[in-house]
Amino acid sequence: MARAAAEDVKVLGHLLSPFVIRVLIAFRLKRVEYELVDVRLAEPKSEILVKSNPVYKMIPVLLHRGKPICESSVIVQYIDEEWSDDGGSSSILPADPFDRAIARFWAVYIDDKLPYLIRALRWEKEAAKVTELVGQFRQVLGRLEQAFTECGKGKGFFGGDAVGYLDIALGSCLGWIMALEKGKSVKLLDAEELPPLAGWAERFLAEESVKGLVPDADEHLKVYEVATARTSATPAA
Amino acid sequence: MARAAAEDVKVLGHLLSPFVIRVLIAFRLKRVEYELVDVRLAEPKSEILVKSNPVYKMIPVLLHRGKPICESSVIVQYIDEEWSDDGGSSSILPADPFDRAIARFWAVYIDDKLPYLIRALRWEKEAAKVTELVGQFRQVLGRLEQAFTECGKGKGFFGGDAVGYLDIALGSCLGWIMALEKGKSVKLLDAEELPPLAGWAERFLAEESVKGLVPDADEHLKVYEVATARTSATPAA
Repeated sequence: MARAAAEDVKVLGHLLSPFVIRVLIAFRLKRVEYELVDVRLAEPKSEILVKSNPVYKMIPVLLHRGKPICESSVIVQYIDEEWSDDGGSSSILPADPFDRAIARFWAVYIDDKLPYLIRALRWEKEAAKVTELVGQFRQVLGRLEQAFTECGKGKGFFGGDAVGYLDIALGSCLGWIMALEKGKSVKLLDAEELPPLAGWAERFLAEESVKGLVPDADEHLKVYEVATARTSATPAA
Repeated sequence: MARAAAEDVKVLGHLLSPFVIRVLIAFRLKRVEYELVDVRLAEPKSEILVKSNPVYKMIPVLLHRGKPICESSVIVQYIDEEWSDDGGSSSILPADPFDRAIARFWAVYIDDKLPYLIRALRWEKEAAKVTELVGQFRQVLGRLEQAFTECGKGKGFFGGDAVGYLDIALGSCLGWIMALEKGKSVKLLDAEELPPLAGWAERFLAEESVKGLVPDADEHLKVYEVATARTSATPAA
């Protein structure tokens, strides 16, 4: 996925991490070229990772002109602000302070709930516990459908007419959601139960800024098995 | 602490919560008047709390012209953006996108580490575990001293010459830190081990925008015992 970097923009990470995908979608929206640099997450971790994210030693890290920025939500907001007047490129966060606050709130909610549920469901083998986790997962998605209605104001995306901050935050997890549905034979984002959110997911994955960045279920499962065997890596923050 | 609200600004919460204190300091910095509304956190929780924060049912909640915003970091950024051209009032987040990103990163770090450590240390009775938690606490504060040096660029505050986003995020926890030091007879923010950070804490607590908002150790301990007996409440998000 590496593209030529016009002004020294490197992203440490890989496409198995929803948190990395967020950063790459943000760059696509801003039409900024970046170089995606794979790093070793297993011990001994890549030196560039340890040096540029000494606190968490996790991906993604953005290196902009050599200066590191960590944490996906922080990086996406940085991209939105740093490339804010980039000749007609869209704004990722809404313009209105109240709408921005609501988007930030739900993004925190997504990070509070989904990574835990994805990880827990991925490793759970006991049928009763899988059922319980699926129930929790669907409850969270139900709340997010309410957020979609509230934030999107009846339009196609959380960001209204175009992909925005919340679309990126949730959409980056769709690969995992589809992989879990297939791998565990369960329904999470059920088109019959949550038609508006299922419709949103379909539109999101068809967007130019997203295509090729979110692996589909098969690809995800296959690549993940290889990665698990190789590194025992789990989604990073 | 309630002051007359000039344009329908209500904050649900009380001064025992660092997260509430953050919001109040932000309003002081912006010279915006607010009304502090105490709510019942124990079951049955106050109706206004459940209605305005249905997801977490926790404090603080900002009600601005009746519209609720939740999560302290989200609220503080909202205040910074909504009252951004308020006749010479200071800006809470730095102006430069890179500096903003670094401040946001460390604020996430504070919320990732401190509330857990404060809660764990508060309730821990076993001496060996207290020692272990104190070690972790001091390690976190040591990292934050590095952040202070990096962000403050040798000036008095994380925000440089004036109290900013990170000063608020960490400073709001000082009451708890002092209360734990006294209540547990331990050293956390040790002036001999961390002189720059201890100096910062002293300056922060002496600021006009902060005075009277962060309870001192005795007040904190006393009030907390009453609150514990009454509600079994712990710091909320």
